[in-house]
Amino acid sequence: MASTTRIVEIRQRVFEKNDILARALRTRFHEAGVLAMNLVSSPGAGKTAFLERTLRELVGACRVATLVGDLATENDAQRLARSGTPVRQITTGDTCHLDANMVDRALAAWSLQDLDVLFIENVGNLVCPASYDLGEECRVVLLSVTEGEDKPLKYPAIFHSADLAVITKIDLADAVEFDRTAAHANIRAVHPGIPILEVSARSGQGMADWLDFVRARQQTRSSRVHS
Amino acid sequence: MASTTRIVEIRQRVFEKNDILARALRTRFHEAGVLAMNLVSSPGAGKTAFLERTLRELVGACRVATLVGDLATENDAQRLARSGTPVRQITTGDTCHLDANMVDRALAAWSLQDLDVLFIENVGNLVCPASYDLGEECRVVLLSVTEGEDKPLKYPAIFHSADLAVITKIDLADAVEFDRTAAHANIRAVHPGIPILEVSARSGQGMADWLDFVRARQQTRSSRVHS
Repeated sequence: MASTTRIVEIRQRVFEKNDILARALRTRFHEAGVLAMNLVSSPGAGKTAFLERTLRELVGACRVATLVGDLATENDAQRLARSGTPVRQITTGDTCHLDANMVDRALAAWSLQDLDVLFIENVGNLVCPASYDLGEECRVVLLSVTEGEDKPLKYPAIFHSADLAVITKIDLADAVEFDRTAAHANIRAVHPGIPILEVSARSGQGMADWLDFVRARQQTRSSRVHS
Repeated sequence: MASTTRIVEIRQRVFEKNDILARALRTRFHEAGVLAMNLVSSPGAGKTAFLERTLRELVGACRVATLVGDLATENDAQRLARSGTPVRQITTGDTCHLDANMVDRALAAWSLQDLDVLFIENVGNLVCPASYDLGEECRVVLLSVTEGEDKPLKYPAIFHSADLAVITKIDLADAVEFDRTAAHANIRAVHPGIPILEVSARSGQGMADWLDFVRARQQTRSSRVHS
């Protein structure tokens, strides 16, 4: 029992230290007028495909960069770099989430003054990333239609902590008999009022709404900084 | 830096304590002639649907029971209990994996002598469950065709630690342009020689091979105990 208490204390201290760093990052993002978005989901929910299409559509319209977290490989960074926008891979080894310190170190090579939007693609995991603030203004949780409508109820913390829910792979909805009403109800059961978008990176469905969301958030941020 | 060392030490002690408990469980399973199988995957890879069909096909042929882990809800236990076989839900709260102690406590109500096969459906997570031995004889990693062929490379530890890889939702392979050759190559890149099955719980494709695998493993176990 004593060792359980000790582990809880240590975890608490890890969270506290992360929160301090995350607050400092949030201040830096705010002062530079950067909209930082933290994308979280299961492995394979389609974060990278979603970001690939997002970057293609945003490039030229605003200055965007991406950090991408994985336990291993640089695959996602290579895919995203094809957009021509700056991308850095964070490989976490056996760590199942990104933390504020990893983000801080990965940002060292960039000047935030040169950015409007920073996407942070977290490690694919519906549990632990919920506990780690990365200093983002907006946390986006992605849920693919192939995962089942019950996931918000089974992983409530991450859906509760998000500012936007994006249902991905909507082009597969019929093939997997996706129950849209149940999915929306389950998301809102753990997070009443959260905005929900439905998208397909493949067909492009819903991407315009998502890009409007990003632009609106970015403009609010920018006008706050310059006013 | 000191606190990082401290965390590593504490984690190490957690793993060691778990390993001791897992070894004791493994001995108990062995002595009772129970084949214990630990099913791990991303959230939404289809573990529960796969087990629902497995239980339906095995009921009557052998004595089977299931433990099922989730952060929240009893949904999966309710689904699996429809098979008429014993099922217990383990709700882990904010813990992202099952550990040997949770399994030990959940087994208290059952007599292992009355079982041939025990399925343990782990929390949906491709990272942390890799580090927690549950005393199983056989670890099965599931990968759905909708998650992408790159997942073994991105989550190597869990694929490396498994004894069998099962590719699920194979009926959706064409709809998601699943690259079978790449998926097999990636699984075997992190775990050379691992057996791979392809199944669909919906259509039944590949289920006979999986049931043969379970029966063969169970009979080996049983004959070792009784010889």
